[in-house]
Amino acid sequence: MHVLIDVSVVPLGVGLSLSPYVAACERVFSEAGLTTRLHAFGTNVEGEWDEVFGAVKRCHEVLHAMGAPRVSTIVKVGTRTDKAQGLDDKVKSVEHKLGA
Amino acid sequence: MHVLIDVSVVPLGVGLSLSPYVAACERVFSEAGLTTRLHAFGTNVEGEWDEVFGAVKRCHEVLHAMGAPRVSTIVKVGTRTDKAQGLDDKVKSVEHKLGA
Amino acid sequence: MHVLIDVSVVPLGVGLSLSPYVAACERVFSEAGLTTRLHAFGTNVEGEWDEVFGAVKRCHEVLHAMGAPRVSTIVKVGTRTDKAQGLDDKVKSVEHKLGA
Amino acid sequence: MHVLIDVSVVPLGVGLSLSPYVAACERVFSEAGLTTRLHAFGTNVEGEWDEVFGAVKRCHEVLHAMGAPRVSTIVKVGTRTDKAQGLDDKVKSVEHKLGA
Repeated sequence: MHVLIDVSVVPLGVGLSLSPYVAACERVFSEAGLTTRLHAFGTNVEGEWDEVFGAVKRCHEVLHAMGAPRVSTIVKVGTRTDKAQGLDDKVKSVEHKLGA
Repeated sequence: MHVLIDVSVVPLGVGLSLSPYVAACERVFSEAGLTTRLHAFGTNVEGEWDEVFGAVKRCHEVLHAMGAPRVSTIVKVGTRTDKAQGLDDKVKSVEHKLGA
Repeated sequence: MHVLIDVSVVPLGVGLSLSPYVAACERVFSEAGLTTRLHAFGTNVEGEWDEVFGAVKRCHEVLHAMGAPRVSTIVKVGTRTDKAQGLDDKVKSVEHKLGA
Repeated sequence: MHVLIDVSVVPLGVGLSLSPYVAACERVFSEAGLTTRLHAFGTNVEGEWDEVFGAVKRCHEVLHAMGAPRVSTIVKVGTRTDKAQGLDDKVKSVEHKLGA
């Protein structure tokens, strides 16, 4: 099952600068060979369900190994059976409506 | 890895009444032997990572099988290494602060 | 416009115990006269749009005043024009499907 | 109070193609003079609290006026008192850690 997700990780108990942890998570997705798009509130990721969620689990493991005692994550998940749609298709579809 | 999640599934293309789909998902979690707490915007679920996320995947499969061409889900995920904490512990902790 | 929301506040830079902050937020909603239901990952709130979102803003102000330098919140928002529906109606609707 | 949000609107009861609704919401934010960044799962928005949330409310009103009987929205909200930070600062901060 193909899946698109948007994931944002929030490590707790490590102070205010979260970017090293977000970057570590980005590396996990890249190393898993997944397509990603970074934005200010998370990362869009595209791939097969088991690979994608295996990488989300690995993010939690890596952040705990970096010293975060608590990790709180939000994942938006989209699957569809009516047509194939990638991350960039979703953005283009809206931009087309905007006449961009 | 023990995990607490909050999951809300939104099937698209099936009209306005989502409760049959939410109920189907509830059954998936129950049949997986996971602890759940239903609320107005989703379901809290507690268990081991692979069992919990296996059930989330199964929800998507079941909803597509019920006829939903598109399924959009939000999952909040919490893991911690500093202490064991269940769903009811989280609620009690806040209620205690409220003097309830 | 009547609205149902689910809100979870995460103060950053204050350590691992978030319950005093969640409790402070609960008080903000109660003092605003709004109907609330607490669960392990947030609080369901029901009311008129401006009152509800005024209280969400007040939560951010109160948490900063308590010393949190950074506050990260997730709000799920639902409005509908087809019928009146309260928080408990949503839960009952699912429970009815489950035969509970 | 300055605020960064990430907003995704899901109209229900209008079929599978949501892009016209997402585009309408984009226009609401643009017309309000707010800075936005579109991605595959939502829109990052930056501005003053009352302007930003006024626009979120207007999105719900516009989508209902377009015929959506039910609108379900997810908003991630971030405020901080320790430093000024814009949407692009957040992305650059992670990219810098990645050596990009």
